Parts: sequence; structure tokens; C-alpha cells
Amino acid sequence: MSEHQFEIDSDRLRQDIERNAQFGTIAAEDGRGRTVLPGTTPNQQARENFVEQLIRANLTVDTDAVGNITGTWMPEECDSEAAPVAVGSHLDSVPNGGIFDGPLGVYAGLEAVRVLQDAGITLTRPIQVVCFTGEEGTRFADGVLGSSVAAGLLDTDAALELSDGSETLREALDDIGFHGKGRLDATDWHAWLELHVEQSKRLEQSDASVGVVTSINGTTRVHGTIKGDADHSGSTSMADRTDALAATSELVLALEQSAREAAESAGTAVATIGELSVDPGVVNVIPGSVEFSADIRDVDQATIDQLVDSVNAKLTQLEADRNVKTTLDISYQVQPEDMAPVCRDALHDAGEAVGIETVDIHSGAGHDTMQIATATDAGLLFAPSRGGHSHNPLEWTDWWDCAAATEVLTEALYSLATTNE
Amino acid sequence: MSEHQFEIDSDRLRQDIERNAQFGTIAAEDGRGRTVLPGTTPNQQARENFVEQLIRANLTVDTDAVGNITGTWMPEECDSEAAPVAVGSHLDSVPNGGIFDGPLGVYAGLEAVRVLQDAGITLTRPIQVVCFTGEEGTRFADGVLGSSVAAGLLDTDAALELSDGSETLREALDDIGFHGKGRLDATDWHAWLELHVEQSKRLEQSDASVGVVTSINGTTRVHGTIKGDADHSGSTSMADRTDALAATSELVLALEQSAREAAESAGTAVATIGELSVDPGVVNVIPGSVEFSADIRDVDQATIDQLVDSVNAKLTQLEADRNVKTTLDISYQVQPEDMAPVCRDALHDAGEAVGIETVDIHSGAGHDTMQIATATDAGLLFAPSRGGHSHNPLEWTDWWDCAAATEVLTEALYSLATTNE
Repeated sequence: MSEHQFEIDSDRLRQDIERNAQFGTIAAEDGRGRTVLPGTTPNQQARENFVEQLIRANLTVDTDAVGNITGTWMPEECDSEAAPVAVGSHLDSVPNGGIFDGPLGVYAGLEAVRVLQDAGITLTRPIQVVCFTGEEGTRFADGVLGSSVAAGLLDTDAALELSDGSETLREALDDIGFHGKGRLDATDWHAWLELHVEQSKRLEQSDASVGVVTSINGTTRVHGTIKGDADHSGSTSMADRTDALAATSELVLALEQSAREAAESAGTAVATIGELSVDPGVVNVIPGSVEFSADIRDVDQATIDQLVDSVNAKLTQLEADRNVKTTLDISYQVQPEDMAPVCRDALHDAGEAVGIETVDIHSGAGHDTMQIATATDAGLLFAPSRGGHSHNPLEWTDWWDCAAATEVLTEALYSLATTNE
Repeated sequence: MSEHQFEIDSDRLRQDIERNAQFGTIAAEDGRGRTVLPGTTPNQQARENFVEQLIRANLTVDTDAVGNITGTWMPEECDSEAAPVAVGSHLDSVPNGGIFDGPLGVYAGLEAVRVLQDAGITLTRPIQVVCFTGEEGTRFADGVLGSSVAAGLLDTDAALELSDGSETLREALDDIGFHGKGRLDATDWHAWLELHVEQSKRLEQSDASVGVVTSINGTTRVHGTIKGDADHSGSTSMADRTDALAATSELVLALEQSAREAAESAGTAVATIGELSVDPGVVNVIPGSVEFSADIRDVDQATIDQLVDSVNAKLTQLEADRNVKTTLDISYQVQPEDMAPVCRDALHDAGEAVGIETVDIHSGAGHDTMQIATATDAGLLFAPSRGGHSHNPLEWTDWWDCAAATEVLTEALYSLATTNE
């Protein structure tokens, strides 16, 4: 047990998240939803409210060129030259998303700072609470926009020129008043921690209420086409047809089977064909061509590569067996990222210190942390998602679980901000 | 051998088809295409030209309430009270269709009449050359519109109220000047013959140049849904997902396999899933639901019913194995139609009389004849389609084959119009 006792104000945290949930709120039959795309009015409201809470906690607010917001707490006794420990997440959402995905991590970071301030303890490092721009990838980019810039993986000017088709990020940030200056640089940080909802059922099914992420899955996306012959559905005998959809159906099942086999050992590999369109797509014409996209993830890039190979092998077999023509291109690729041992240890030790059980877990979804991990020591912890629901209004994390995870986060932040290693 | 010799004027027939091909003509990289939807300007032009050719051949032109056009030849010596023999097809096309599908049958009918007129032979029955409205089902109805009215299967007023969303058939026919009076009644006919392009490769692969249709496939269309869970593609393990597309892929392959087995005996059964849409259809979300339509055909309704049963059985199995929810409804159903022995015999005998080999064949596609067969003795003959292409500009039938089939048609018409049975 540690010699201090941090008291999380779970009501204050809940009020922060519920206040934030008002921006972009949507009517939902079940649950609570919001739509907060980056650079829109709801996003402006969420950002302005966040800045207000940072100021209320006496943090120094800064906004960089791509709209990343930081609130810096520089305890009087700490070395102002010391590399800060940063903590946070994002405030944007998917369309019709939930109220925890992002905001929990942002406001848990702020709550941790307020708790540490109230405890009157001594720190050796400043703490920065961060809100990254555009994590979800529903506007301007495929996702993790602000954190990619902070990690030096995406050029600031290139990011500002990204367009949603009618407006650039620069114009949108100008409109909402969050086009700041300079570049938040994650290499300046001693360490980074993010609390996020799990978006899966594994924590719920375990005894632990906090997950400490070991690795974040890498993602490879492939886009393919399968071409057959768009003949008459009535006058073309079964023997004479080259049905692009039947061929694609074999691929869907083969990839599912390969991913199941790859998941048998570690359980981390997944593969999904979520996008599929049939041309001409009419009831009395045999499908002439099919376009599809597959999303393949694992903590091990070699497994991802094997699954991509299995898609190519199946396409080759389909060309031979079914006389179709096929193409396959890699459209998106992010490497798996291991979390830093120093951060993982800090989180497990924190759990032990406060008496909350933690469990090792991998992250199937991508997060800002996966970008930040390329620039500094990074850690990610998960709070349980009820029923695993996410990216819709059914997303829910019990307030008790929010507070427990924030308590672990606070203890780990304290630990990382009081070492000189 | 018959005691007469009918001389088809293949140039005159070709000129008719090529003149008709100018209406609604489209630019095509390969082949010759046209778009002639019922009730449009190109359809008006094609109809006006047809009427002009009927008048030039001294036929009496009539247009019924739904725009079916007839040209009646009443030879002086025939019994004006005798039930006529009718012959024809349609002049509308699918979007980007070919130049033979429909017009060959209409102008072959007219050419047959001109040849019989020129031969100066005696007939006991009048002959009517017919152009039906809206065979293709691309506007106002699912197809065989005018022939359904003529067969008494569709009420005239109901047909006239059919809308394409912005205009009714009545308005469209008024606009193009082909909203006539009364109802062409196929039960008044002694017999009906239609020449059509085969839209398949079977004739080309056989030695015969004319196919005599035995039966027209019945068609049953089913519309179904398969519902799973639209979860995150990264954070949902392979074991925890309910993927609606993977389930649908099993169905596509199961139906293909069932149809292949059903086709093993007669080779006439076909089943196609041509329409399929995935929701939400994005790369990083597991398919939450899939809608599909299947088109199932055979000359035997029992086989069609078995194939529909196999779809239901597979859906039941998927509900058990994959935890999906499914629905299936029959959205369209037309019974198989056997062609009248008297017409089939007339066509085979005609082939023998003129020295052109004929072969029994089934029709996989639906035709106006399938409706007319419910009202009177009906026959259908096929000319070969090069490469089986149809419903696109690659559709082609050699002019020699057009003439040969028209020669068989003429001889059969003569035979049917000179009997009193």
C-alpha cells in the first residue's frame, strides 16, 4: 500500500462526461448517443467546455496548429524543464456514437490532475492533459489525425490541407476557433497514458475491472475485385456461368476460417470483410463483378501478413476453379505497437497499490496511443464496456468502473511524474 | 417437301431491324446498343416506324388501351370470322440493350406476312402482326406488361395506373400518342408464334440454327434478410462475432450447390443471388445485416419449390449455427409454361419442309409468349445468339440466322393459317 490515498470524485467525473454528452446529442431508442465530427459546431462546443474545465483547474491551455488542446499543470515544486507526463484521449465521435469513447480518457486525465492537486503531494514532472483532434477517422482522415501529427508521423501542413470534399481541416479549425500555432510534440514527453473504454466483452467476462494493454493490434486493409460475367439469370445454365458473388462468398468464408485458425493460439487475430458491393446488383442478372474490402488485425505483423497471403492464395485458386479475374491491393497499413513496459508496470503497480485488480489485455481497436507509442513510452488502460457495445448509443461503462479506472490512472500518473528515470 | 417455296427477303428484314436500331441508339465500344424504355421518345419513334411499315404492307393497324399494336392481314379469300393466327414480339429494350431482342420477332412476323402476300397463296385465317407494350420490365412493371393484359392476367385499368414514380403508363401512352381503345384479346387467336433471340449459347453449340421451345421456365423470386451484430472489426474476437455477410456467403454457396444438383438431370434449373447489400457496409464494422434477392427458375415448378425449400432450410441452419436472425418472402412468381404441341409440331414440320434443322430447347428467360400461352396455343422459336450475349450491345444474331428462323416462322404461320382444326 502507498503512503497516500487519492480520493477520486466520481460525481465530478460523471458530471464532466454528462456535460460533454450534451454536445451533438442524438435521439436514441436505447442508450445515449452523440455525433461529434471534428471541426463541427458540436465539436466546438465540446472543446470550449473542455477548455473551461482546464482553466477552472488552473491549467495553462494551449492549442496547436491542428487543434490538439493541452492543459498543463506545472506544480510549483517540480522542475519546469523536466519532460512532462501526458494523459488524455479525444472528444470527437463516430456518427451516432456513444458518450464514453474518448471523453472518458480526456476527463479522467483532468480528474487525475484535480485529485493530485487536492492531495497536495509533490511531483517532479509537469502533467499535461490532452485532447487530440480527429481520432475517429470520420472526417478529413482515416483516424488518429492529431496524434499522428504529435508523433511526427504526419506533417502539420499536409494535415491542415486534408479535406472532407467541401472544406479543409484548416478551414474547419478556423471556423470553430481552434486553429492554434506550433506543433504539440510527443517526443517531448517522458511518458503518455490513455484511459479508454474497451469496446469488447473480455473485461466484462473477466474478474478484473481494469485492463492494462500489452499491444495494440496492427491493421492492414486490402481492397479487391472479383470479375465474372454479368449474364442473364434465366438463360445461362449453371454450367455456363461465372458468378462473381459466388466466388466472393468462397473468399469471405475462407478468410473467416483462416482468421479463426490464426486466433486459436493468442486469440488476437481478426479479419472482417465489411464492405462488399455487387455489380450490376439486379435480381435477374448474374453478378458480373464484386468489390470488397477486408480489415485484418493482429498484435503480430507476421500473422497479418499470413492472412493477407491467404487472401491472395484463395483468389489464385478462384481464378483457376471459377474462371474469375481478381485484383488485390493493400489500401491501409498500421503496424502493431507494443506498450512500453515502464507504463504497463506503472499501471499494474497502481492497481495493486489501490487494491483494484488489473489484467493484461490486447487492444483490437486502434487508438491515439498507437501513434504516440512511436514517439515516447506509452501506456493504455481499458475500462469495461457493458456487453462490448461501442460506436453506438448502447455503449456504456458503469460509473463505478469509470471511477476505478481513473483511480488506477491517477496512481500511475503520480508514479510516472515522481520518478527521474 | 411442300409444293410452294417461300422466298424470305433477308435484305428487307435486315433493313427493318437496322432502321429500328436507330431509335434510342447508344454509343457502344463493341457491338450496337439501344435504350428504348416503354413510353419514351425512342419508343414513340420505333412504334411510328413500325406502324408505317404495317401500312406499307397494307395491314389494318390498331392500337389497344395499353398500347399493344396489331397489323391485321385479311386475305380476300379467307373466312373473316375465323380466329386469326398472331405473330410478333416487342420493340422496347432494357437500358443499353441490343438491337435484336424483340425487334427480330416483330419484323420477322411482318416479313412472313409480306412473303405470304407475295407468294399469292390461299389462307383460311387472318394473320395479325403484334408489338406488345413493355416486355422488359424496366418501367411501370416487372415485365410482359402488354401481353399480360392481352392474356387477361392483368386488368387494363390497373395496367394504365402503373407508375414509374413520376408518370403513369396512361400518361406516357397519351404523351407518345399510343393510348388506343379496347383490349387486344389473345383468347380470340387460333394460335400465337414468337421468334426471339435465344440469349444463351446452347443453339450456337448445337448443329441446329433454329430452336423450338418446349417449355418456358417458371420464375420465383425471394427476398431475404440475415441479421447479425454490427460490432467493431478490431475489438470483436472471431469467437464473439455474428457476421451477417459470412452467414449470407454460406447461403450463396448452398443455393448454388442445390441448383447445380437440380440441374444435373434436365439442365434447366438455375438459381442466382444477383442482388445483395451489406449494412452498414464500412470496412471497420462487422456486417450487421444483409439483404438479398434470389431468382430461381425451372421448367418444373416442383423443382423451383424444392430450391426455395433449400433456401429456407439453409436459413434455419444458419440461425442455429451462427445465431443470426433471418426472414424470407416470395416477392414474384410466374409458373412454368409448356408450349402447345400444335405449335411445336408446326415449327418442327416447317423446318423439315424448308430444309432447316430444328432442335428442342427450353427457354430460361421469360417472354410475352409465356403469358399468351395461358390464353391460346402458343409457340416460341429461337435464333442463335452469338456467344450467348444479350441485354447489352454485344447481343448479335447473324443475318443469315435471322433469315433462316424467319423462313421457318413463315412456313409454320402458313401451316397454322391454312388449317381449320
